[in-house]
Amino acid sequence: GGVRVGDHVALNWAPYCGRCFYCLRGKPSLCQEHTDTIWAGTMKDGTTRFKTPSGETAYHFSGLGCFSERVVVDESSCVVLSKDIPLEIAALVGCAVTTGVGSVFNTAKVEPCSSVVVFGCGGVGLSTILGAKLAGASTIIAVDIVDSKAPMATSFGGTHFLKYGAEGEEEIAKQVQDLTEGRGADYVFEAIGSTAVQEAALACARPGGALVLSGLAPVGTHAAVPTALLTRQEKTIMGSYYGSCNAARDFQRYSDIHIKKQFDLSQLISKVYRLEEINEAYQEMLEGKLARGLLVFDEAAQFGPRGALPRSSHVGDGDRGEEDVAAVEDVDVDNGGGGDPSSVAEGPS
Amino acid sequence: GGVRVGDHVALNWAPYCGRCFYCLRGKPSLCQEHTDTIWAGTMKDGTTRFKTPSGETAYHFSGLGCFSERVVVDESSCVVLSKDIPLEIAALVGCAVTTGVGSVFNTAKVEPCSSVVVFGCGGVGLSTILGAKLAGASTIIAVDIVDSKAPMATSFGGTHFLKYGAEGEEEIAKQVQDLTEGRGADYVFEAIGSTAVQEAALACARPGGALVLSGLAPVGTHAAVPTALLTRQEKTIMGSYYGSCNAARDFQRYSDIHIKKQFDLSQLISKVYRLEEINEAYQEMLEGKLARGLLVFDEAAQFGPRGALPRSSHVGDGDRGEEDVAAVEDVDVDNGGGGDPSSVAEGPS
Repeated sequence: GGVRVGDHVALNWAPYCGRCFYCLRGKPSLCQEHTDTIWAGTMKDGTTRFKTPSGETAYHFSGLGCFSERVVVDESSCVVLSKDIPLEIAALVGCAVTTGVGSVFNTAKVEPCSSVVVFGCGGVGLSTILGAKLAGASTIIAVDIVDSKAPMATSFGGTHFLKYGAEGEEEIAKQVQDLTEGRGADYVFEAIGSTAVQEAALACARPGGALVLSGLAPVGTHAAVPTALLTRQEKTIMGSYYGSCNAARDFQRYSDIHIKKQFDLSQLISKVYRLEEINEAYQEMLEGKLARGLLVFDEAAQFGPRGALPRSSHVGDGDRGEEDVAAVEDVDVDNGGGGDPSSVAEGPS
Repeated sequence: GGVRVGDHVALNWAPYCGRCFYCLRGKPSLCQEHTDTIWAGTMKDGTTRFKTPSGETAYHFSGLGCFSERVVVDESSCVVLSKDIPLEIAALVGCAVTTGVGSVFNTAKVEPCSSVVVFGCGGVGLSTILGAKLAGASTIIAVDIVDSKAPMATSFGGTHFLKYGAEGEEEIAKQVQDLTEGRGADYVFEAIGSTAVQEAALACARPGGALVLSGLAPVGTHAAVPTALLTRQEKTIMGSYYGSCNAARDFQRYSDIHIKKQFDLSQLISKVYRLEEINEAYQEMLEGKLARGLLVFDEAAQFGPRGALPRSSHVGDGDRGEEDVAAVEDVDVDNGGGGDPSSVAEGPS
């Protein structure tokens, strides 16, 4: 096994050992062997490979730190994919698609003909909508604060779009009830990471329904949960981290959504940026303009175009560890919800 | 089908139709047809059968209102049991046993060799401990504020007992981690209905673990849930109402625990009271002196003893609607967590 020179890989920000307590219980994204260093932002040996221009330590978010032309990562962070998968699709599958589709398939296990609500129509939310569609959900209600997300939500499978406005929790819950025979939805996904939205989302779940939290709220904040109702109405709240993924299984599986033409995942790419445009990319993401922004690195040019986008990155031989494309994550930069926000927020100063 | 004169029955405080949206999805305790009137405290037709001595309407908590010598209930609230089940056992199975054992079997679906924590060692909590033992859990940690519950917890299957003291959340979580290889427990049950305890209980669940809420917190209160941790550690919070029971199936099933001598359920009965002693019974329950208190009605005497306790109640013919035994619920009187606290809190004035 292992990774060989020339392999095409997607980078996995929750590597796992396959042998620990969590891996043996089907929760590789909670792997005991990796969690400490991943959360600390170091390599497995506790060290880093980056420094700022002034010589200070720069950390590898999730052991990757992948907003750079060349990067050293642990072999366990590399998922080898078949070479017919365009690398820009691999970049999407390495985070947003796995988080969103996985929250539907692995965490919630949505059944056909279910009713689903998705709060947030960024990369994770749109992937959640797509997952719900592929799982056979019959009512898929997308919610966002930006009207311009409505056509995107529809193209990914949304059957309805609701604008989340100042009316807040009660108004959204009422609108969802109107679309679900007065009950509320079977499954509600929160793909933003706002405790206020999480509270509103819980109110949209029907008795016996589930709220799935895939968005990362800021560490230290709390959602106010009306537990008497939770008990009397038998609701469930499920944390979903990286789509409860097993990366080696799921990256290929979700790539096949694109390869087998179930859905064109490149629709997630709203705009392509170069590395020097990364701050603009983040700004436009935070303004809700993007599904996903895609960064393309300078070195990609040397491989030449194979399609509309460069797709030729591979594991380098010796000093050629190129990584050509990276998706700008649709998460709050401060919260560390995937990808490498730290390199934006805490990079060279 | 239906109930016939002479049948032995246990009363079901969450009757169901078997045909509605919720019943067809395996959630009869959420039955659409009954919820409104059950929550309103009336019979199915919206009326009541009780008045106070001064002529005011008295409500039927959960359609039963069973702290009375005679009672009119809907047929759907009666679960016919085989006549070899002692009626005092039927009274226990009608609430605490079904809520506690069911939270393990139906809601959490605890696997063999799991680690389990149970907050609260009243009737529901002890039944939860028993359920965990029957499900094959290997570590069962009971938690209560009263030391005297320790031997009870052990006799029901607890392997460890922790006293919940002023140290609160962090101390309990640390003690649980010490007993679970540093991880926290696979399943944590809160059988009290205190938001503060619910928060402490969540901290005792391991990454990937579940918190099951069977205790009813006061309506209108909220637990503060650290949702970033919930997501990153993939914890689940599950409401469990009446043990997610299907009463017709589960009352007989849980009675068989006693009949087939897997466990002597009468150990739940700490003390027997007459109806006129009910306020004392509640007081002693609130002081943590009881697992379960059992009320025995005057009319039971006419059937004569068949054992240590009267066990002869049956559906009356015409004007003989006797109900001889009722369990004093181990719940907060104000919260309406089963049984008929309303007849204590809001009865004849």
